[in-house]
Amino acid sequence: MHTASIISIGDEILRGRIVDTNFAYLAKELFLLGLNVIYHSTVPDKEEWVCAAFGDAVQRAEIAISTGGLGPTPDDATRKGLCRFLNREMKFDARIAQNIRKFFEHRGIEMSENNLAQAYIPEGAVPMDNPEGTAPGIFLRTDDNKMIFLLPGPPREMKAVFHSVRTIIEKELQLVPPKIKIFRTIGVPESLMEEWISALVFPDDVSISYYPSLRGVDIFISAKQDDSLNNAQSQIKNILEKYIFAEDDEELLLEQVIGKILRERNETVSTAESCTGGMLSSRIVDIPGSSDYFIGGVVSYANEAKTKILGVWDKDIEEFGAVSQKVARQMAVGVCEKFGATYGISITGIAGPTGGIPQKPVGLVYIGFAAPDETLIRRYTFTGGREAVRTRSATAALNILWVHLKYGDVKNYSFQDGGEWV
Amino acid sequence: MHTASIISIGDEILRGRIVDTNFAYLAKELFLLGLNVIYHSTVPDKEEWVCAAFGDAVQRAEIAISTGGLGPTPDDATRKGLCRFLNREMKFDARIAQNIRKFFEHRGIEMSENNLAQAYIPEGAVPMDNPEGTAPGIFLRTDDNKMIFLLPGPPREMKAVFHSVRTIIEKELQLVPPKIKIFRTIGVPESLMEEWISALVFPDDVSISYYPSLRGVDIFISAKQDDSLNNAQSQIKNILEKYIFAEDDEELLLEQVIGKILRERNETVSTAESCTGGMLSSRIVDIPGSSDYFIGGVVSYANEAKTKILGVWDKDIEEFGAVSQKVARQMAVGVCEKFGATYGISITGIAGPTGGIPQKPVGLVYIGFAAPDETLIRRYTFTGGREAVRTRSATAALNILWVHLKYGDVKNYSFQDGGEWV
Repeated sequence: MHTASIISIGDEILRGRIVDTNFAYLAKELFLLGLNVIYHSTVPDKEEWVCAAFGDAVQRAEIAISTGGLGPTPDDATRKGLCRFLNREMKFDARIAQNIRKFFEHRGIEMSENNLAQAYIPEGAVPMDNPEGTAPGIFLRTDDNKMIFLLPGPPREMKAVFHSVRTIIEKELQLVPPKIKIFRTIGVPESLMEEWISALVFPDDVSISYYPSLRGVDIFISAKQDDSLNNAQSQIKNILEKYIFAEDDEELLLEQVIGKILRERNETVSTAESCTGGMLSSRIVDIPGSSDYFIGGVVSYANEAKTKILGVWDKDIEEFGAVSQKVARQMAVGVCEKFGATYGISITGIAGPTGGIPQKPVGLVYIGFAAPDETLIRRYTFTGGREAVRTRSATAALNILWVHLKYGDVKNYSFQDGGEWV
Repeated sequence: MHTASIISIGDEILRGRIVDTNFAYLAKELFLLGLNVIYHSTVPDKEEWVCAAFGDAVQRAEIAISTGGLGPTPDDATRKGLCRFLNREMKFDARIAQNIRKFFEHRGIEMSENNLAQAYIPEGAVPMDNPEGTAPGIFLRTDDNKMIFLLPGPPREMKAVFHSVRTIIEKELQLVPPKIKIFRTIGVPESLMEEWISALVFPDDVSISYYPSLRGVDIFISAKQDDSLNNAQSQIKNILEKYIFAEDDEELLLEQVIGKILRERNETVSTAESCTGGMLSSRIVDIPGSSDYFIGGVVSYANEAKTKILGVWDKDIEEFGAVSQKVARQMAVGVCEKFGATYGISITGIAGPTGGIPQKPVGLVYIGFAAPDETLIRRYTFTGGREAVRTRSATAALNILWVHLKYGDVKNYSFQDGGEWV
């Protein structure tokens, strides 16, 4: 297996001013290319540190990729540090200079001559186009034939240049990238999923990775051989099929999948939220074009808002409490009628940290789902802090809607979300 | 200046499965302690890699702090890697073993004997209490007197043990931590703030750091001498005073400050959101106890929701469009009346990526603010993607409310938020 190392360059990272998301991005992408990332370092914007970091990186791995420090100011020490390590001179690259001039012209901004500092690159280096900025990426080989790539620090630029890196690595290493299958799942905790999958037997060249979040778990299956991948993916799909909302597209959100179905069917949804306070509607509206199927929502945080706007009965709030099956039902039905939507979803719960009592602990959440032919209520007791309870609630609500849209028969779907119908 | 390095240990980080937030946390905390963090590395859970990482770290800096790999399984290689580097044996620590047993008893969980692996620590090491888990932190000195700290990987445990690290470092280095003053500001872009502050002259021992986000900019002023700190903070406060919503407490959110004032005055707020889709209300509800002053909100995404629920006039939407001064005004007034709140805030805009036209480009946002005695509308053209436009909109809305609560005279406040009253 080929090895790679990553270098993050920047004082602002070492001072904790920014979280280094570039590294996580590159680590995952290189892993998916079939490389073994064995080392990562973060060093200041100082020539001697950068020089040492390249030394460490290529000593340990065949490929070194750095991000940051490619700007035009004296603070940006990456090119100089690399030249020092390689013991090579900088040379002026006329094509880069021309691209930089064009970049500014195109945007109608006057260029400072400083910017041309970015046109100097180490001898033997090849620039890689950066469609998002003025700092080109740089690729070269060391005298002992290791590969070094320099990428700009701003994440959008880094990602844009990484496309070239991927192409070069594949070509130079004559890499056959592993075959990858991605399943995005909703509603099954990672631990349960791992338990299910650990009972399966796969060909030796298969490896499985889980990328969990509060919004679901992504599964990456990789294999050297097509046959192996097919074997593994069909076994896993066999177990998990009903929880998979997207395949192969790791950017596709559950909210988008739901939106697509609603749009096709010309159906609409509305939301009534208490403890989530608009988090569910905000996630739905995150999706461009959601105005086609999302009419609106009510955040009925105070009881008064529940009764006045949604028509929840005062006496039910008094008798059963705002966090109850009855109130969740009236909220869902109320918002559905109010907005004239096909579906109404309600969330009422105790997000904490206070407000819990023994019969109604922190984490207790009722989710109501009003469809044209029935209204169903599900009860959960979520763990975690206020933020986690709220995020899990919004996710569970989307899960119910998705199951209804996709499978129709919500009541007989084998939910693994920890909730129960009440 | 004393130097420190940080080591992150874990395959899951190198595979991009998780973003390494521990590192950013430690980097910032060490910086605030007055240490110079000059190196950070990430290595796999492998004894030989961990061994090499400690070598690199203490060669470069006086202090090395690692996170991760302290669990009880064979995958957890940090203690072993360190022993190999130090050329020391492991010893059994009875007090740690007892604490581990207690931890399980306390939670009524049966302990597996594997867990006692965590009671073995390198010769000469001192355990540091971990109130959040079973893996104690570990502190020791190398033969050439460098300091090494091992912290557990789960962020909550890492932070809990870091308290001991701070105390030990301060004592052992007889460190006089720099005096720190923190200002949290809202409504001034970082670039403008830096421009203003760069015109000031400070004593030599003063250093200023900016921690910007879409929600505001934090300023950390540090100095060796009290006098210097006082000098710098009063100069900066002189310029920025009206934009500072919190001092010294870096966890305090603008939403909390607003909530506190509303609660004291027995006033309430309600929200009417279009393009933000509930993001504003969700941020208000993020704060525990917000039910005291937040009644509720309406997410009026479709025009129908604006007219039906909020009483916006159909003909105004037709004539001026949903993203207009008129509609923002009617939304703010409408939601305020509907919920009987003291204040109504509305947001209507074009978050993109599509839907813009030359007269109404993507990023155009109107924010309406209805107070008992007046209703004001502010227009913005925000930059960035859909998510950034929405987050900036919600922040701008909170800013207006805060200015009103704190200074009363909103119209004559010198906003630097890029908006204008219309």
